[in-house]
Amino acid sequence: MVIVLEKNITEKQVDNIVKHLEDFGFAVHKSQGVEQTIIGAIGVKPDFDIRKVKILEGVAEVYRITEPFKLASRSFKKDDTQIKIKNVVIGGNEVVVMAGPCSVESEEQIFTIAEIVSNSGAKILRGGAFKPRTSPYSFQGMGEDGLKLLRKAADKFNLLVITEVMEISQIQLIEKYTDIFQIGARNMQNFSLLREVGKASKPVMLKRGLAATVEDWLMSAEYILSNGNMNVMLCERGIRTFETYTRNTFDLSAIPVVHKRSHLPVVADPSHATGLRDKVLPMARAAIAAGADALMVEVHHDPEHAYSDGPQALLPDQFAEMMRQVKLIADVIGRKM
Amino acid sequence: MVIVLEKNITEKQVDNIVKHLEDFGFAVHKSQGVEQTIIGAIGVKPDFDIRKVKILEGVAEVYRITEPFKLASRSFKKDDTQIKIKNVVIGGNEVVVMAGPCSVESEEQIFTIAEIVSNSGAKILRGGAFKPRTSPYSFQGMGEDGLKLLRKAADKFNLLVITEVMEISQIQLIEKYTDIFQIGARNMQNFSLLREVGKASKPVMLKRGLAATVEDWLMSAEYILSNGNMNVMLCERGIRTFETYTRNTFDLSAIPVVHKRSHLPVVADPSHATGLRDKVLPMARAAIAAGADALMVEVHHDPEHAYSDGPQALLPDQFAEMMRQVKLIADVIGRKM
Amino acid sequence: MVIVLEKNITEKQVDNIVKHLEDFGFAVHKSQGVEQTIIGAIGVKPDFDIRKVKILEGVAEVYRITEPFKLASRSFKKDDTQIKIKNVVIGGNEVVVMAGPCSVESEEQIFTIAEIVSNSGAKILRGGAFKPRTSPYSFQGMGEDGLKLLRKAADKFNLLVITEVMEISQIQLIEKYTDIFQIGARNMQNFSLLREVGKASKPVMLKRGLAATVEDWLMSAEYILSNGNMNVMLCERGIRTFETYTRNTFDLSAIPVVHKRSHLPVVADPSHATGLRDKVLPMARAAIAAGADALMVEVHHDPEHAYSDGPQALLPDQFAEMMRQVKLIADVIGRKM
Amino acid sequence: MVIVLEKNITEKQVDNIVKHLEDFGFAVHKSQGVEQTIIGAIGVKPDFDIRKVKILEGVAEVYRITEPFKLASRSFKKDDTQIKIKNVVIGGNEVVVMAGPCSVESEEQIFTIAEIVSNSGAKILRGGAFKPRTSPYSFQGMGEDGLKLLRKAADKFNLLVITEVMEISQIQLIEKYTDIFQIGARNMQNFSLLREVGKASKPVMLKRGLAATVEDWLMSAEYILSNGNMNVMLCERGIRTFETYTRNTFDLSAIPVVHKRSHLPVVADPSHATGLRDKVLPMARAAIAAGADALMVEVHHDPEHAYSDGPQALLPDQFAEMMRQVKLIADVIGRKM
Repeated sequence: MVIVLEKNITEKQVDNIVKHLEDFGFAVHKSQGVEQTIIGAIGVKPDFDIRKVKILEGVAEVYRITEPFKLASRSFKKDDTQIKIKNVVIGGNEVVVMAGPCSVESEEQIFTIAEIVSNSGAKILRGGAFKPRTSPYSFQGMGEDGLKLLRKAADKFNLLVITEVMEISQIQLIEKYTDIFQIGARNMQNFSLLREVGKASKPVMLKRGLAATVEDWLMSAEYILSNGNMNVMLCERGIRTFETYTRNTFDLSAIPVVHKRSHLPVVADPSHATGLRDKVLPMARAAIAAGADALMVEVHHDPEHAYSDGPQALLPDQFAEMMRQVKLIADVIGRKM
Repeated sequence: MVIVLEKNITEKQVDNIVKHLEDFGFAVHKSQGVEQTIIGAIGVKPDFDIRKVKILEGVAEVYRITEPFKLASRSFKKDDTQIKIKNVVIGGNEVVVMAGPCSVESEEQIFTIAEIVSNSGAKILRGGAFKPRTSPYSFQGMGEDGLKLLRKAADKFNLLVITEVMEISQIQLIEKYTDIFQIGARNMQNFSLLREVGKASKPVMLKRGLAATVEDWLMSAEYILSNGNMNVMLCERGIRTFETYTRNTFDLSAIPVVHKRSHLPVVADPSHATGLRDKVLPMARAAIAAGADALMVEVHHDPEHAYSDGPQALLPDQFAEMMRQVKLIADVIGRKM
Repeated sequence: MVIVLEKNITEKQVDNIVKHLEDFGFAVHKSQGVEQTIIGAIGVKPDFDIRKVKILEGVAEVYRITEPFKLASRSFKKDDTQIKIKNVVIGGNEVVVMAGPCSVESEEQIFTIAEIVSNSGAKILRGGAFKPRTSPYSFQGMGEDGLKLLRKAADKFNLLVITEVMEISQIQLIEKYTDIFQIGARNMQNFSLLREVGKASKPVMLKRGLAATVEDWLMSAEYILSNGNMNVMLCERGIRTFETYTRNTFDLSAIPVVHKRSHLPVVADPSHATGLRDKVLPMARAAIAAGADALMVEVHHDPEHAYSDGPQALLPDQFAEMMRQVKLIADVIGRKM
Repeated sequence: MVIVLEKNITEKQVDNIVKHLEDFGFAVHKSQGVEQTIIGAIGVKPDFDIRKVKILEGVAEVYRITEPFKLASRSFKKDDTQIKIKNVVIGGNEVVVMAGPCSVESEEQIFTIAEIVSNSGAKILRGGAFKPRTSPYSFQGMGEDGLKLLRKAADKFNLLVITEVMEISQIQLIEKYTDIFQIGARNMQNFSLLREVGKASKPVMLKRGLAATVEDWLMSAEYILSNGNMNVMLCERGIRTFETYTRNTFDLSAIPVVHKRSHLPVVADPSHATGLRDKVLPMARAAIAAGADALMVEVHHDPEHAYSDGPQALLPDQFAEMMRQVKLIADVIGRKM
């Protein structure tokens, strides 16, 4: 931690600040300049609240100089985390595509879509059985019946399963059916849930919250990692800004930023980021061009009758075209698909 | 719902749109202008996804014309909701103050602070026993022991209790000790939790999420209301913006906005909104001047040694001064305290 | 400037960084910790681009530790700036109210409104003669004719004049008629214009840009101050966020923040911040409660026929009521009006 | 315009609203539903302030159903605007690259860089002679001397010139040297300047403001178009959000959004959007993948000694590599470079 002192500070005030820092357990280094004095405080714990120093008399600014996350940090682990699930690796050289409907709606629906996405090269089937909906009056998902159908459809077409867990009591149930737990954007800081999936045996995909900085996001990952589950992937799905033409603002710069700061793989979800079907193809291309390790997209063979999010689902032929183009872009940057 | 058609639309396209709308169950009214045609679709359900219409060929814009929330709406209930808990009423003419430490830390701490805030006129004691912390390495609260101390301290000094519930499994336990459940900003869209506190017997204070619009916030209130718990109060505590001098941006305009759109009482929390002690007093005054029904503020007698959020806690004499000034402002706008 | 080095940095890399810093003209202090090394670089110029250091091999983080503004800073000038114009002082103990229509529309209109606002206690008449409008098809103001009417009306009712200047070529003209130059939010970073009003003889009110941090805002003030015009007041009028119920989000916390960082007076404009008449009264009260030195509000006797911004203009009796309430709140915090 | 009335509105209130609408010059169509009445008001002018209706007694919501911009709209002009300057076309099938230093610093510097970017395939040379800097103490550009050098260097290496104009008085001077006027983000709503470049004979590149919605941006374009200059290109360069790892948030979704709503070409500037050199390559790729018509990037052969923005400038070999990769991505989506 670095503490910048005010310009006209008295000796006594400086001593008082130093005493406080020592009481907090820091080793203190003072650098006196002509105009300004700076104090370096070494040995800060990741959870130290720097505002405790900010409010001391005579302190102008305080900078925490260590990242608040540890296990999620690139400085903790130099090599990219590769998450191996059966024959699929996320975070390696290959770009992986997760696709499927927003919600599982029926046996026919999920089998139809599973076949379509498998044929076009997707490796993982997505589909919600427990749905977090803004309105209490909206379709809330099929529950365990949905999970069973999702598993059966995935197995039939040689796909893995990813599905969302909304609360602690669902973890055990969902773990029976899924290959990857999805934590939704609205639960990114549901710390109780994070802690419990951190104790689960399956990998977790953590979506970025609408108002989460990259640092907040990595701190939430830290909850999962610090409970023992090292298989965490992050999913960028748009942040909330003043712009309203798109549902959210797809922060693609976050992809290289996370890759620099962390060893965890990054998935990009252009369906939720834009909210409209005709923006999904260009944004899927852009996400791969920006370096995403995987894509998550919504696909539906009959989106007009989808129970949820139909308008952002790709049609089967649009999905096939997306796969074709995305594969070519992966080639350009030296990746496979 | 109002649908604006594109200017050069063909007859056939119009017919197709009308057919879709009728299939969705709407009564359709067509208004043909010289340049532009508008369709009114009457009978929309609150959870209808208007993007289903937006993506039809020939549609330029779609406007949902009904609010997506119902029970939370001022048009559903004209009169202000007044929440009566023992001898305290929230949402009536009297301005109520909730105060206390961020976390319950020890018997001595909570009794000391309870006495201080009670002496200065607070009616409700706040204090966390289960703490949602950004870092997994930070103090996570005393759990049930904290709840017991909080209750005892409140009872001794004739105060009510408000404390945060973070997950479904805590509801039953907390209900034994608290008078009001607090749902934190990070759980504002934890719909599973909202549903369950909606079945509880105690009132709920719902904090606004960092990226939540007023509409999102009222939709989350709707989850609680639609499960039977009509005693919901809302708490503005700052939203996330680009400005970084303050922890969050305190959206005080939301107070009159909510009062116009909804019948639910509004609490304002200047401690979390600003994050720094010296901004709490002016912002507490501003919140009451803007029409808040209640204030929630953090108070600590020894903030330098607080386990969490010490830098934003008022000192006892600052709290007394705040109460004095806030009372005078309440008088100006015809309210009591 | 403080430079935090990466954990596994080599000696050679450290030397290279030190050499660069010395080349940039800094005095360098190295503090070697067990895990991490920190470098203090003393003597940074306010305009040094710290990214030049950020990109050096082995640098983890860089913190500029001096504020980029100088003349605007509280550390440059301890006492509040008081701007005296004839018998009015802005930034002193008295709260000053500026009121009037959005645009000057006619002799009758501006005289009618000037009389109304003067009778209720306003000291300064506002009114646009050159209007920055989002649409090129909207009313763009009466130009010099508007300035003449504004001056005449103000003189008759013993008011000062504030009016907006949009471009350099208007400065000389407007200076003949106005007492205060207003720089609009959209021109807050029109640096050419700032430089020129910095050479003018009349005080300047600088509105905060929609996306401007407090630091950006003070930097823009610095442009005016550093060109010799020390009579600058700042005006908070709402920032752009994701919330859409109000036109902008009124950042009232900026008032105590600016007062801490700078000696310049702060005006608050609830009319533009909220964009709707019925939110102006509560937000005017809140602004004064938060410590604003002055208010700017729009008033119109016939807002339905106003050429611009009618919906946010207060009616005469609403303005009178606002003045009554705001005066009482000023009393509470020990100010006069 | 569509007006939704409140549920319990009286006959008299409805009549009053209708009368107002007719006075404003609208043709009125009333659709009475069981629960709710909707009024369609046909004939709205683009600059009508819908808040005039919003504040009438009994009005619940008002929707403007026509876009506020006209000449910039895709419905006004179906075909993409192609801007031909000598042998370069912006907005056609070919992707065009504009590159060069932030500021012109010396003859040697600009000739060196012009040669580098020309060799790698750039068609347009960028470089500032008048610089809008946040700090008044920063380098403000070489002025006319810079313009002369820029023109000479461009001519020698067969490049076009783009350079920024900051104020009206510079237009005539800059027009002698440049091929394209650049309007910077901070001047996007400097309407006086927009109007005057709208009368100039050279094309204009309009950068998006930090807080500008796509609609604001197109309205600013409308200022230029409505003054007669139809050669306008738009430049996305990042918007301001809460995220601070990158300088701004690069809103790449805006590219397909603008292409749908408008016929104007879109340029993307990854240098300003991210502010850091190592993010420029992935974001340049992403921008082309998202459909940008042109790229603007900063290049410097000696960025450590650049007078401004060195840290975001690509080195010559990084630029060459970017050109190679971007060309391949252009191929994937059927474009040339």
